[in-house]
Formats: sequence, structure tokens, C-alpha cells
Amino acid sequence: MTDDGTTTTLTPDECWAVLAAQPIGRLATAVAGEPEIFPVSHAVADGHVYFLTRPGSKLVEVTVNNRVAFEADEWRFDTASSVVLKGTAEVLEKDEDIAAAEATELVPYLDDGKNVWVRITPTEMSGRRLTR
Amino acid sequence: MTDDGTTTTLTPDECWAVLAAQPIGRLATAVAGEPEIFPVSHAVADGHVYFLTRPGSKLVEVTVNNRVAFEADEWRFDTASSVVLKGTAEVLEKDEDIAAAEATELVPYLDDGKNVWVRITPTEMSGRRLTR
Repeated sequence: MTDDGTTTTLTPDECWAVLAAQPIGRLATAVAGEPEIFPVSHAVADGHVYFLTRPGSKLVEVTVNNRVAFEADEWRFDTASSVVLKGTAEVLEKDEDIAAAEATELVPYLDDGKNVWVRITPTEMSGRRLTR
Repeated sequence: MTDDGTTTTLTPDECWAVLAAQPIGRLATAVAGEPEIFPVSHAVADGHVYFLTRPGSKLVEVTVNNRVAFEADEWRFDTASSVVLKGTAEVLEKDEDIAAAEATELVPYLDDGKNVWVRITPTEMSGRRLTR
């Protein structure tokens, strides 16, 4: 759907395609009115976003039981696409959930001991593509 | 300063260099406990981050008088750098402030009528570089 000739709204499938194509996204949280933002290596599967973090990390602390926003974007010479989803994040503890996360075959940029899986379940998602 | 052999903390000058080298960053806000995240084309000058938005846009609404976080990152084969700053955002109204913003010669990805300058004044900044 073209809005104004230069900005296109992405369908949900297109949003997931952008999220899946980008290895890096940014997680935003809001705790006590203070925004935080973290770049993460992520994977997507079955309508969820997955990433790894360290046990006891600040990222665990701020994401658990809090609303999060997650964004990924893709910049090319003539198009720029960005997807933002909002939802909730949870640390995975059940074997079957961890198995589903591992099945994404996520490869973090740096293998530095991150072994806690976090899963984001979106409640809303929007994406747009600029064409110039 | 090397923390653990694979993660280096960036100096303030190095943080500004990463912010200046990246045309795109992400702004996070927290309004009523709800995080928002927006990709923006930005420029830096004199210890501030500048970007353009539209009059009356949601971005204006959520950034004004609110704490914001801003992040930019740079991914290469063997190093990944990210910088996060926190601070306050304000819409520029004074001629001299707008002149300073215009002097950054910011070129938005898409010239689509954004003509309201927003300036972020950081209160804290941190950056790190992963080497693999």
C-alpha cells in the first residue's frame, strides 16, 4: 500500500521478512520512565523474536516482566525498510522453549558466554519502506 | 581499555566518532511505561545529536520534555561498535539553534517534508566495541 508515493506500509509477512533478514536489532525498554536501548543479535521463528544474553545481565533485569519494543532496519541505496514491534519479553526456562530457541540456529556476533534465551512475543507490529 | 579481551570500552571521543560516522541511529523513548523506538537520520555537532522530523509528528510528541536514549552501531566483519547515549530532546525554535542544526548539513535518507529540528543533549554516554 503506497501512502504518499514514497512511503509504503509493510504487510506482516514483509515485516517478518525484514526481521529475519537482519542479524542485528535493537531492543528498547522503559523502566521507571527511563528508556534503555540495546543492540542484539536476534533470530525469528514462529512469530517470535529470540536473542541470547548473559545470566544476571542488565538486559535480563530490564526485559523481564516489562513491555519492550524491538526494531530492525535495512538500508539500501534506494530503499530503507524498518520494522518496529512491541510486546513482552521473557527468559526461557522450559526445555521445549529452549529447544525451540536453539532451533533458530542463532549465531551471536560474539560468542562470549551468553546462554540465556529471551523470547519476545509481539502484541503489535508495524513496518514501512521508504523509496527514493 | 580492554575489559575481557574481546570487549573494549570506547572513550567519549571514540563514541562521538561512531555516532558521527553512522548516518542512521535509533531513538528510544519511554512514555507511560511504554517504550517506543524510531530509526532516524542524524548528525552530530558540538556534543549534540540532531535530527529532523515533521511538525506535529508522534516523534515530536514523545521526545519533547521526555528522557530519550539514542543508539548507533557499526558492524564490520571483525569488530562491532555500539554507542548509547541518554539525555533530553528538545524541538529547536530559536534562530541561532536552528542555524547550528542546519550547519550540520544533515541529509535525511528521504526528503519528505521533515523540517522540525530536534536536538538531543546527552547526560550520559557509553560505547563498546566487540572484536572477534
